[in-house]
Amino acid sequence: MPDRAERTFRRTAAERKPREERWAELIEVATQVFYEKGYEKASLQEIADRVGMLKGSLYYYIQSKEDLLYEVVSTVHERGLSIVRQLAERPGEPLERLENVIHGHVVHTCRTLIPTTVFLHELSSLPEERRAEVLGGGHTYQSVFRGLVEEARERGQVREDVDPKLAALFILGSTNWLYRWFKPDGPYSPERIATDFADMAVRGIASEAGLAARERWRTAATAQG
Amino acid sequence: MPDRAERTFRRTAAERKPREERWAELIEVATQVFYEKGYEKASLQEIADRVGMLKGSLYYYIQSKEDLLYEVVSTVHERGLSIVRQLAERPGEPLERLENVIHGHVVHTCRTLIPTTVFLHELSSLPEERRAEVLGGGHTYQSVFRGLVEEARERGQVREDVDPKLAALFILGSTNWLYRWFKPDGPYSPERIATDFADMAVRGIASEAGLAARERWRTAATAQG
Repeated sequence: MPDRAERTFRRTAAERKPREERWAELIEVATQVFYEKGYEKASLQEIADRVGMLKGSLYYYIQSKEDLLYEVVSTVHERGLSIVRQLAERPGEPLERLENVIHGHVVHTCRTLIPTTVFLHELSSLPEERRAEVLGGGHTYQSVFRGLVEEARERGQVREDVDPKLAALFILGSTNWLYRWFKPDGPYSPERIATDFADMAVRGIASEAGLAARERWRTAATAQG
Repeated sequence: MPDRAERTFRRTAAERKPREERWAELIEVATQVFYEKGYEKASLQEIADRVGMLKGSLYYYIQSKEDLLYEVVSTVHERGLSIVRQLAERPGEPLERLENVIHGHVVHTCRTLIPTTVFLHELSSLPEERRAEVLGGGHTYQSVFRGLVEEARERGQVREDVDPKLAALFILGSTNWLYRWFKPDGPYSPERIATDFADMAVRGIASEAGLAARERWRTAATAQG
């Protein structure tokens, strides 16, 4: 228990910062605590202590621990999805865009390992309604991946016998699983993993025509570079 | 709170069963409760209630909730790993065996969805030492997959530029992720998913020679069948 003088100092120090800055700090600390302890075991007291606020002051920002989890997972989900959608919508052949999307998704996952882990591991701790809010209506990772596989198949770049939904789930599984094994100080860089994973995924579903077209645009890209 | 007569009846009924049968029941019920509630939220009281035992009687079998989790995850891990290792050691070309191993792993995952989910989602709730005991020394899924990729690469069936460890992690991710989306009453059967996933994974890493050899042994298998 801090004594009165210390309490006063901490409150003043916290209150000197603008509200938005404190909110960002709170989210960052909450992400870290959920990551280390798991959502169930994480306590608002510990989050308050680490951010240097009194527990009671948290209630200026949130109503419950659940509000913090919602904020953490919806932020990382929105950012990741927006990267993936931007890459998907750039000009280029659908198979090429799919490869870029996988690459970008892998790099983003590696670079946001802590919030991504909280998102993938703790999303199920949110009540169903809020989970649905986070995932949004229709604009999901799965639909982006699946849409590109469908487009590429229509263009003859993906084999006829590939089921776009299964292919999307196959690719998402291999990339999402990163959160279970990727180590920022490990032997593989995010870029290396991204290149290899995108390569294996594209080869796994591409038709012969698709692979031939891919060779052409890669050669063209190298020539341009 | 059950009254005295009901308590007596329940204890007698539980005690009429042989110890091994009660143990198996206890593990089954614990698996289900961990699956539904998550390990942290699951209580020994609820497990005892559902199995029809007094909470105190659980201590004839275990010392803590952790012992139950250990039992659940080590059982499903051992069974799955033994299936995968048996398939890996059968005669045949390494690429062919890899395809069979992926197929078997997918089917097993789909068929043991509830204990597999507890294994994949709650393993991290065990202390590090017991987690290491569950995973065993070296004989892991990853080493089986990686070993087959290496063998196939030495035989020229997998591309030179494929990193066996990254390939193993790619394949394991896509198959393990099943626990997040597979629905036993959904549109895809375990066999359908297994066939498609094994096909995408093998095509993702195979060399041209490997793909040609695969065509030959598939044709031979069809002729034999």
